[in-house]
Amino acid sequence: MKHCLIITLILLSCYSLSAQKSKMMIRISEIEIHSKYLEEYKAILREESRVSVKVEPGVISIYPMYQKENQTQVRILEIYADRQAYESHLKTPHFQKYKTTTLKMVKSLKLIDMAAIDEETMPEIFRKLKE
Amino acid sequence: MKHCLIITLILLSCYSLSAQKSKMMIRISEIEIHSKYLEEYKAILREESRVSVKVEPGVISIYPMYQKENQTQVRILEIYADRQAYESHLKTPHFQKYKTTTLKMVKSLKLIDMAAIDEETMPEIFRKLKE
Repeated sequence: MKHCLIITLILLSCYSLSAQKSKMMIRISEIEIHSKYLEEYKAILREESRVSVKVEPGVISIYPMYQKENQTQVRILEIYADRQAYESHLKTPHFQKYKTTTLKMVKSLKLIDMAAIDEETMPEIFRKLKE
Repeated sequence: MKHCLIITLILLSCYSLSAQKSKMMIRISEIEIHSKYLEEYKAILREESRVSVKVEPGVISIYPMYQKENQTQVRILEIYADRQAYESHLKTPHFQKYKTTTLKMVKSLKLIDMAAIDEETMPEIFRKLKE
């Protein structure tokens, strides 16, 4: 009976850990920028991503890049602790400022939800650094 | 004269820092996998990326993901300290094993060179953790 209880407790903590991990939101945003706004857009995005990662505990990564061969093609790796962290990010003044000031600069936008192939590694690295 | 020397030294160290950062190789690999091999492929990639990040100091990140809506579409964020680190990664036994065992599983492969919009942030985070 005692062993059953221990095994149940171990199983419960495994489930809880796995539920916690799968709550994480991972996304690659694929954004095309009108070329005349490119430098201005990159400066605004740089500021927004820095502030978000710094002040929001639920923002694990906002890592912006652009394609070297096609520089108006921007990609952002975004990792949030859970959907709630993402929803609350959307309401912050720095995100609102980014969204409104860059609206006219964006030619197209695709938000692609991703799953990590190895949940043990990188998001944990980001998370640990923020603790 | 003394001030000129100090200013020159400051400028030189700025250039050196910037050269060091711009040597970094960032890439998003876009890989489509034949669906019948998907689980097997993910297991091999998981192992390869874990080992690379763990044992190779120049491998800053190999972070593999797949699209939730189209699970055979795999994306990997790869960050290497410089081209030499990348070249030496290609020669490791774990990369060679990954490459040869997954060759038949890969339907298409695009290697897209990227530049970071904010070089100060994430790659530094990865790098610090490996030190």
